Amino acid sequence: MHIEELTRQAEAFIRQCYAELDKTEAEMDQRIQAVREEINQSGSYTHTTEELAHGARMAWRNNSRCIGRLFWQSIELMDERLAETEEDIAEALLRHLEKANNGGRIRPLITVFRSGEAPDRRIRIWNHQLIRYAGYPGDAEHERAGDPASDEFTKVCQQLGWQGTRGNYDVLPLVISIGNGHPHVFPIPQHLIQEVPLTHPEIERFAELQLRWYSVPIISDMQLEIGGILYPAAPFNGWYMETEIGSRNLGDTGRYNTLPAVADLMGLDRSSNTTLWKDRALLELNRAVLHSFKQAGVSIVDHHTAADQFVRFQEQEQGHGRQVSGRWSWLIPPMSPSSTPIWHDSKLKEYDYSPRFLYQRSPVATCPFH
Amino acid sequence: MHIEELTRQAEAFIRQCYAELDKTEAEMDQRIQAVREEINQSGSYTHTTEELAHGARMAWRNNSRCIGRLFWQSIELMDERLAETEEDIAEALLRHLEKANNGGRIRPLITVFRSGEAPDRRIRIWNHQLIRYAGYPGDAEHERAGDPASDEFTKVCQQLGWQGTRGNYDVLPLVISIGNGHPHVFPIPQHLIQEVPLTHPEIERFAELQLRWYSVPIISDMQLEIGGILYPAAPFNGWYMETEIGSRNLGDTGRYNTLPAVADLMGLDRSSNTTLWKDRALLELNRAVLHSFKQAGVSIVDHHTAADQFVRFQEQEQGHGRQVSGRWSWLIPPMSPSSTPIWHDSKLKEYDYSPRFLYQRSPVATCPFH
Repeated sequence: MHIEELTRQAEAFIRQCYAELDKTEAEMDQRIQAVREEINQSGSYTHTTEELAHGARMAWRNNSRCIGRLFWQSIELMDERLAETEEDIAEALLRHLEKANNGGRIRPLITVFRSGEAPDRRIRIWNHQLIRYAGYPGDAEHERAGDPASDEFTKVCQQLGWQGTRGNYDVLPLVISIGNGHPHVFPIPQHLIQEVPLTHPEIERFAELQLRWYSVPIISDMQLEIGGILYPAAPFNGWYMETEIGSRNLGDTGRYNTLPAVADLMGLDRSSNTTLWKDRALLELNRAVLHSFKQAGVSIVDHHTAADQFVRFQEQEQGHGRQVSGRWSWLIPPMSPSSTPIWHDSKLKEYDYSPRFLYQRSPVATCPFH
Repeated sequence: MHIEELTRQAEAFIRQCYAELDKTEAEMDQRIQAVREEINQSGSYTHTTEELAHGARMAWRNNSRCIGRLFWQSIELMDERLAETEEDIAEALLRHLEKANNGGRIRPLITVFRSGEAPDRRIRIWNHQLIRYAGYPGDAEHERAGDPASDEFTKVCQQLGWQGTRGNYDVLPLVISIGNGHPHVFPIPQHLIQEVPLTHPEIERFAELQLRWYSVPIISDMQLEIGGILYPAAPFNGWYMETEIGSRNLGDTGRYNTLPAVADLMGLDRSSNTTLWKDRALLELNRAVLHSFKQAGVSIVDHHTAADQFVRFQEQEQGHGRQVSGRWSWLIPPMSPSSTPIWHDSKLKEYDYSPRFLYQRSPVATCPFH
């Protein structure tokens, strides 16, 4: 980025950030002056930990696809910009896992590694989420197993020497690279993998399906942009909304596709669409997710409560004179969406706000082992 | 519209229409020549009944919000362009009702009245749908009743002399105006009002809720545009998808808002969102709608079958080299949308095709009695 453009973005960020943090005009001016000088001398600038922490919160607040933003101020920063090696990074990710899990009482957390200016020092986490299940396509000898969304990445892990069990719930290892260096593979110790086996409040035989899911979704493949600085490795997490697991991860035909098995267990007639067997199976699957997480003492939110919280977030933002950026198609929940106020909100609109989380090209797709 | 622009649109329509109808080049050229001359002489042109019929089919095919377009070729035209008076028009609408109802085996139908060039002869049907239930806001003496979506129009009907019973299912009268003339009110004879009382396949007490819905949705407030000619009165119908009634009309908090009553009948715990009582009530309400319509022998489609039919429509259109215009937010059903292929279709896009159905300013909003 041209230094004039970087200076402009840096200044805009510092102004908004310092205003929100109730800094004085003098502090703001002084900091802007220092940032300008640093950019002029080095071509870039370094956020203070306070700026990084608040910038990350703002990025969450600006994430137009997230229904859970009422709690944007609560996300904690783990400032890991000094992590040097792949090993340092893996250790920091394991710390993130442990701290986020927090014995079930999930903490919103973001770990930020160094920014990506120098290509040979650019850190990439290859995993889509820190914890995710491997996927194995079927072949002549095996039935398909695991999460189809992970098929591609699983193959890369295997070619890097990792071995799965071909089970439905093999947790993939962390894969980390620096610059153009060879990716390093770090299996996640079993004690850091918190999972919830699914049972149902009424259907006793539900456990026979042997469904389970991990407790914390930690998105690890997006980059964080704050005031013109890009952080290509900045994994973050909130807690799950039940439909993400029940409706999508376990329900989608392109994912675990468990609705037929759930319906059969329930004794539903699958010979006709009009029995609404898919809807009935989905509903009980989502009830099982909520029930099991509650039973296990793991934080989770239902989609009605999440939608109500989103409305409170909108009101809160309006009170601060800020316009919420929102994408309707991502914010409506995938179960009974018209029973939530978001469905009826015709004013939702997306804005190009910064700080923000951005997609970036996956190293998996361009990997030579792929 | 400038006659050059009208000529351009007319010619484009005739070309596409005649190509689809397998007319010869000679027929096409001859017709285009005749249309040009008619426009030059009169400033407008008159569609043949065949053009009107096919233009209406194309308008359905182009309706980006409709999931039921697989059957676009099956819609029948009632050419009522010669209807002169409000009485003529009302009679034609009652014929539409009877023919569309067809004893339960619903026929897709469109009735087209004369085009709207001359403002003093412009026909407007004030009803949103030909059959719809009145809405009565609550006041000091009465609880609210009926369909909140009809509150405004109901008030106009009352001021025009119509009297309802303040019931939940009072069918509104037809209201028709010509030019700036006084709107005329025509009650719909009881024998033309086909309705389905709701029962449930398993919950016997469901009938105690005394829910019902009419059998045919006949949209009557949109205008039809074909080759540059606007038809401001062109009511059309297909048949219902069950979620339109169960999830939206009866389920929405801004409509009949019946979920709490359904949940109470089912004995669900409404003290917490996490029981998913809304989702459970919605599901049984939709099952009741499907069950009751089937029992009554009235055509209806479930949202899974409708979504599958939409995919076949997309394939069919692709086979004809046509790009489907589609708006995702309208095409996804409001129950378990992620269990249908439409949810996962990231390529849906809206195009400005003609012929088409257009919104127009409601005469209700500008009515002096309002």
